Amino acid sequence: MNMPLTIWTYDWVPGGKAGPRGHVRDIRLRWACEEAGFDYRVKSVPFKDRGAEHFSRQPFGQVPFLEDGDITLFESGACLLHLARKSEKLMPRTPRGEAETLEWTIAGLNSIEMVTVPWWFIGLGRPPDNPLEGWVMQRLTHLSSVLAGREWLAAGQFTVADILMADVLRVPQVLPAGAFPPIRPSVERACARPAFTPAQEAPLAHFRAAGR
Amino acid sequence: MNMPLTIWTYDWVPGGKAGPRGHVRDIRLRWACEEAGFDYRVKSVPFKDRGAEHFSRQPFGQVPFLEDGDITLFESGACLLHLARKSEKLMPRTPRGEAETLEWTIAGLNSIEMVTVPWWFIGLGRPPDNPLEGWVMQRLTHLSSVLAGREWLAAGQFTVADILMADVLRVPQVLPAGAFPPIRPSVERACARPAFTPAQEAPLAHFRAAGR
Repeated sequence: MNMPLTIWTYDWVPGGKAGPRGHVRDIRLRWACEEAGFDYRVKSVPFKDRGAEHFSRQPFGQVPFLEDGDITLFESGACLLHLARKSEKLMPRTPRGEAETLEWTIAGLNSIEMVTVPWWFIGLGRPPDNPLEGWVMQRLTHLSSVLAGREWLAAGQFTVADILMADVLRVPQVLPAGAFPPIRPSVERACARPAFTPAQEAPLAHFRAAGR
Repeated sequence: MNMPLTIWTYDWVPGGKAGPRGHVRDIRLRWACEEAGFDYRVKSVPFKDRGAEHFSRQPFGQVPFLEDGDITLFESGACLLHLARKSEKLMPRTPRGEAETLEWTIAGLNSIEMVTVPWWFIGLGRPPDNPLEGWVMQRLTHLSSVLAGREWLAAGQFTVADILMADVLRVPQVLPAGAFPPIRPSVERACARPAFTPAQEAPLAHFRAAGR
């Protein structure tokens, strides 16, 4: 019997400028499952009281984590790469296609998000100068050169690398209006896919229903 | 005929407090190849003049990148995961062992290095307060809890996840003296493996021979 996948996320998260509402990383996993047509369900752990059981499954006390039969994985990037091996809609089945999907997923995590997230976090404190500003601009300039020449990042098709990169770049403030012309359309192209809408809407509806 | 793997790195890098000498990420790939007993060679690209051909293989103008037959990969994390699938010495061949290696490699990149590298970079400017200090301490506290209970991060054996995490954490300044007791021994345990020495020594010898 094929057990459905289970995506674990928080029962609730704060909204507002600094709150992650609309950007919890379970969206990346929902999006991949929607693209591939996987059978999945979503369960939640408390945001406010993160107990030993939560840490036993996510050692940094975060979400998401993924249950696939008797395997549990944490780290959204790891979950995406795990899901990618289950469907050609998420990663082609050729050695080169797998290598390109892998390198661009890791680039999204470690060359882009590694810079944008600390930059965003420091920016919340409204410092006169953000010490990571130049680094963000340099990375986005390089990414821009790549995206000027292709529709999707890896292997000539939509892959989990595009899910990852679009989710990293759609964070408000990351892309200054008008800057990096090839990047914004690429994010919009990814987020215009039918699979993105339920992935984004479902957690928002859940938080609204939680009445907080 | 089995073509050897080729690891590409810089011809030279600066030393000193802010220079990457001794910490260029080609070490991660050399280390994995040494552990697995792979046939590999090392080639270099200019550090000072990074031309179009370099950017065509590493879109952010960095190193390393890896050639494996007709496949070229960039991002040290992606290269490690690619190499891991070639040898059980780097990752066990069970679904659970692969999942654990994957999640801990990504955790090294995206939960630890994502915080320690920007923290280190900001610290170079000697600000009175480092805005990422609390975040680094929190992540290392959680990692410390994990490492208190196990010898290696994933799958009950040494894997590429340990290579990645040790290389992230052996950066000077990241581990305050005496803090996080379970972390330092784990880094020392990894770096005491026979495969680490040639991986670290070869690039240093190369830079010395370059006479700069």
